[in-house]
Amino acid sequence: MDVNTIKDPTFLKNTSKQELEALASDIRQFLVEKLSVTGGHIAPNLGVVELTLMLHKIFDSPKDKFLWDVGHQAYVHKILTGRADQFDTLRQYKGLCGFPKRNESVHDVWEAGHSSTSLSAAMGMAIARDLRGTDEYIIPIIGDGALTGGMALEALDHIGHEQKNMIIILNDNKMSIAPNVGALNNMLGRLRTAGRYQKVKEDLEYLMKKIPAFGGKISAAAERVKDTLKYLLVSGIFFEELGITYLGPVDGHNFDDLRDNLNYAKKTNGPVIVHVLTQKGKGYQPAESDATGKWHGPGPYKIESGAFIKPVDSAPSYSQVVGDTLTELAEKDEKVVVITPAMVVGSKLEGFQKRFPKRLFDVGIAEQHATTMAAGLATQNMKPVVSIYSTFMQRAYDQILHDVCRQNLNVVFTVDRSGLVGADGETHQGVFDIAFLRSIPNMAIMMGKDENELRHMVYTAIKDQHGPVSVRLPRGNGLGVKMDTELHPIPFGSWEVLREGHDVAILSFGPMLQEALEAAKSLQKEGISVRVINARFIKPMDEKMLEHLAEENIPILTLEEGVLKGGFGSGVLEFFHEHGYHHHLIECMGIPDRFIEHGSVKKLLKEIALTSDDVVARIQHLLPQNSTERAYK
Amino acid sequence: MDVNTIKDPTFLKNTSKQELEALASDIRQFLVEKLSVTGGHIAPNLGVVELTLMLHKIFDSPKDKFLWDVGHQAYVHKILTGRADQFDTLRQYKGLCGFPKRNESVHDVWEAGHSSTSLSAAMGMAIARDLRGTDEYIIPIIGDGALTGGMALEALDHIGHEQKNMIIILNDNKMSIAPNVGALNNMLGRLRTAGRYQKVKEDLEYLMKKIPAFGGKISAAAERVKDTLKYLLVSGIFFEELGITYLGPVDGHNFDDLRDNLNYAKKTNGPVIVHVLTQKGKGYQPAESDATGKWHGPGPYKIESGAFIKPVDSAPSYSQVVGDTLTELAEKDEKVVVITPAMVVGSKLEGFQKRFPKRLFDVGIAEQHATTMAAGLATQNMKPVVSIYSTFMQRAYDQILHDVCRQNLNVVFTVDRSGLVGADGETHQGVFDIAFLRSIPNMAIMMGKDENELRHMVYTAIKDQHGPVSVRLPRGNGLGVKMDTELHPIPFGSWEVLREGHDVAILSFGPMLQEALEAAKSLQKEGISVRVINARFIKPMDEKMLEHLAEENIPILTLEEGVLKGGFGSGVLEFFHEHGYHHHLIECMGIPDRFIEHGSVKKLLKEIALTSDDVVARIQHLLPQNSTERAYK
Repeated sequence: MDVNTIKDPTFLKNTSKQELEALASDIRQFLVEKLSVTGGHIAPNLGVVELTLMLHKIFDSPKDKFLWDVGHQAYVHKILTGRADQFDTLRQYKGLCGFPKRNESVHDVWEAGHSSTSLSAAMGMAIARDLRGTDEYIIPIIGDGALTGGMALEALDHIGHEQKNMIIILNDNKMSIAPNVGALNNMLGRLRTAGRYQKVKEDLEYLMKKIPAFGGKISAAAERVKDTLKYLLVSGIFFEELGITYLGPVDGHNFDDLRDNLNYAKKTNGPVIVHVLTQKGKGYQPAESDATGKWHGPGPYKIESGAFIKPVDSAPSYSQVVGDTLTELAEKDEKVVVITPAMVVGSKLEGFQKRFPKRLFDVGIAEQHATTMAAGLATQNMKPVVSIYSTFMQRAYDQILHDVCRQNLNVVFTVDRSGLVGADGETHQGVFDIAFLRSIPNMAIMMGKDENELRHMVYTAIKDQHGPVSVRLPRGNGLGVKMDTELHPIPFGSWEVLREGHDVAILSFGPMLQEALEAAKSLQKEGISVRVINARFIKPMDEKMLEHLAEENIPILTLEEGVLKGGFGSGVLEFFHEHGYHHHLIECMGIPDRFIEHGSVKKLLKEIALTSDDVVARIQHLLPQNSTERAYK
Repeated sequence: MDVNTIKDPTFLKNTSKQELEALASDIRQFLVEKLSVTGGHIAPNLGVVELTLMLHKIFDSPKDKFLWDVGHQAYVHKILTGRADQFDTLRQYKGLCGFPKRNESVHDVWEAGHSSTSLSAAMGMAIARDLRGTDEYIIPIIGDGALTGGMALEALDHIGHEQKNMIIILNDNKMSIAPNVGALNNMLGRLRTAGRYQKVKEDLEYLMKKIPAFGGKISAAAERVKDTLKYLLVSGIFFEELGITYLGPVDGHNFDDLRDNLNYAKKTNGPVIVHVLTQKGKGYQPAESDATGKWHGPGPYKIESGAFIKPVDSAPSYSQVVGDTLTELAEKDEKVVVITPAMVVGSKLEGFQKRFPKRLFDVGIAEQHATTMAAGLATQNMKPVVSIYSTFMQRAYDQILHDVCRQNLNVVFTVDRSGLVGADGETHQGVFDIAFLRSIPNMAIMMGKDENELRHMVYTAIKDQHGPVSVRLPRGNGLGVKMDTELHPIPFGSWEVLREGHDVAILSFGPMLQEALEAAKSLQKEGISVRVINARFIKPMDEKMLEHLAEENIPILTLEEGVLKGGFGSGVLEFFHEHGYHHHLIECMGIPDRFIEHGSVKKLLKEIALTSDDVVARIQHLLPQNSTERAYK
């Protein structure tokens, strides 16, 4: 059928198995075609086609509530709830969101982008249901990778305790984004190959039948054993220990198997976990071949060959530069170890892992543990580097504060995807880290003007052992600058004048410096002389240079791709007022006090007025000859 | 023996059981006596006397490393490592810290105050050990309550996976701070009464012996069963599933039992968990009777009667006022539900729990889950209130941002222990929340000038449903003001002039307003007229009043018991510069950029210059007639 004609999932009630199979095929074709143009999370979605179809057939959304953990696997759900016609705009500015979005559809009852939230949210919904006395089903769908996040484990603990009705779908694709690690995963592995358990169970049952023949004493023993048998021998004993009924494993591409188990789950009292085995990338050969790597969430590709269509970029990505630099540093210093929460591929650590397999620790989706483990390493004079995305660093706020910074330990964070990230949108923007890190004592924060300076910063952070240091790096490719062969330290807390000027000074860092330099060039033509300062240490700031600016009484514009409230600009304001310079003209440009949705970074910067044109306009108003008090009210 | 003579734990190697028993008794007497004067965590420490003695006898600290999770149970460890003579200064300004402190002793290898960090830190230490090829033991000691924190579960997962040598002591006192909740706890309960398992194991072993008689087929089945038996029948199957050897349960007050199991653990390869049962408050009857309540961490008491020595305080505690107000509101609105992470007693929610047992959810130490569960409730139009300490709110930063604020859900946080907390010290100071909450879009933050205003704020937050709201409240007792009987809403975002004045305006909130008012009175005598403004909405600020202040061009002093970097004062600076008032005299007083140690709040405020005298001095300098540019450099 033409999936564009689907308005809502009610039609599924009357579909036959054959029709479902045909529809699954149509949806796969639709996804492969549409995503070949827009890019998107192809492999995770190809893996859940049958599962999503059967969920919508057996349950009644939106009365029954699906909570898609992480959320990047909800494309099929979006198609079945009438949004197929919007897939041309997927993950684009003002287009269809790549994650569930409550304002898109009544069928999207929970939004996520970060993992491991669905069980807690489902628990809240189940409590609300029982307090108001309604009877809808609450169905969180969580991956095996997300299950290792501490929050999901906290939730399982509470769910097992409260015994409220809830049907947890464990979407086990064996590898989530990265090959899964952890004891929980080993346990899931045992469940996947549950043959041995089954055999033992059969053996014991066989033995049990024979036992009564022994007479009195043995019979009583046998009874006790029987009572305990079910408890001891169920496959999902880990979950059963927590008080959650385990069903599975279920073939996630077999409609009959899915139907039977979901129907059984519906009839079960208390919390149930349905362990569904799926294959990421299912049905599209290129995606199947590297589902957790390049095909997890690729850009556009050619359908026939599976070749990626990419703009030719000679410059390496910032992530690659950091990965390579860490490998280089680890060669020279055996104390350097790297910790990543499931982002070996995303943060380009494959080279490091290959070269130093025993000094790279992928802890799975466990940012808290990653951070405090690094603190533990640092107490033993190791030089741990936590490679983490800015947005996921939010999960480790307390660990950064209480464990790392309070003990003033030498832990380096390489903060990947700092700044706006584009298509992933508001759940993934790396725009809060400066505000939340800057207020924590002992933490230094830096960001390089280009990939070459970034290399030296990683070196500086690790070599100097200044206590906790965060080295920020943007998403995407570097500027293509020449790379120094020798690494050298950057004087701690020093800024750099990139362009001289005497009418106004722009203080900025990272990619925004390019906007600043461009603006300076434009303004030059108007006879306005702009100084551009690379404020590469966001904390500690270059106080000498700040003093100098204060004494010059030159107007200042701060420019950052981070939130204005509590950001770098606020730090500059704090400095001036703290040091008695109350009459200085300072304006701050940055991200306003709202969440920024998805779209290309370029369009987003335009929307929030952070382009070089906006800088030009702001400076034209800012300069004393143009400005009057309160000009920007 | 006189415990004051203990210099280090080496003498324990040659002690007999009798001597150990005498020493345990001496240590208990010492603790009961000393803490009767200073106050402190008496019950947790009385519970671990034998355990700590045996740990120090069997292992070699500081070569072997003890990591005390949470850390408030390390008093016996402090005594055995030569710090008995400092107990008169326990938890006092510049005195002995109530938690492990690395600069106090080489035996304190890990600091904590928040729970659930020890396993991750231990993992870091074990990795460091194995990389450098040394052979020390790593011994985290974690309570049953702390085990439910998501971070501890993340760590267990990784520990089971990596299989590094580590001896985890599970100090199970059945009830941690609060009666434990959660499925994990139920499971521990089953382990505690392991008789049934033992019986089943014996039964099955008995049956197994009989089985070979059946001949061929059954014998093969029996073999397979036997292979699996150990795996299935060990008591700690939950831990064994994760790949961690389980030993126990062990009587934590029996030296022989402790010795045997710890020695066995020493010889075991890979990670081991030793499940030790202890009794909080053991050996001092008053503490035994209410170990998790009043005797968890009391102030001074009379030894004979167990009566607490308290200054007579007629005013109720801020926590009590909030607890009572929540109960009152819940009476009128059935949508109000309260969630607490293990702080029913601390946050005075016993009354609410008694009145509405089905609308109070104590989720255990699980701040992340608590927060996102509240978000789930809010999607269903319930009115969830998360009652949480400021310092523990740090654990839920990402959940507040990604789940609550990003979806702009009506979740109310009552932020207990906001501001300096005193004796608990740097791990517990509630001084970061303003900085980290203020930069998150949609979050409103308020704090009342007294307990009466606090009541109205709780009402306002719940009634108005403004999206996420944080209502801060300090530790300790209210001012004793008259309480209104009727609750009324406070206009959202409005400030209040508490005292008129025309020379300078102080913007402050909460308890610091008392310092401001006192300073204003003193300055009045000098002819300086001070306006005091109750900036009760920290966000959103009262922009009309700010405009007015700007137009008056009155010098401003902001005063807060929170960090200066990114705090309320920075918000005021941001407002003025954003609105083009670049030439306004504004100074900010608050907490400097370092961690503040333990001591009475009064002494701490003096140390960091936040008393009324400091306000007077600052204003004397600040006023134009006295000030010159850069007066405070």
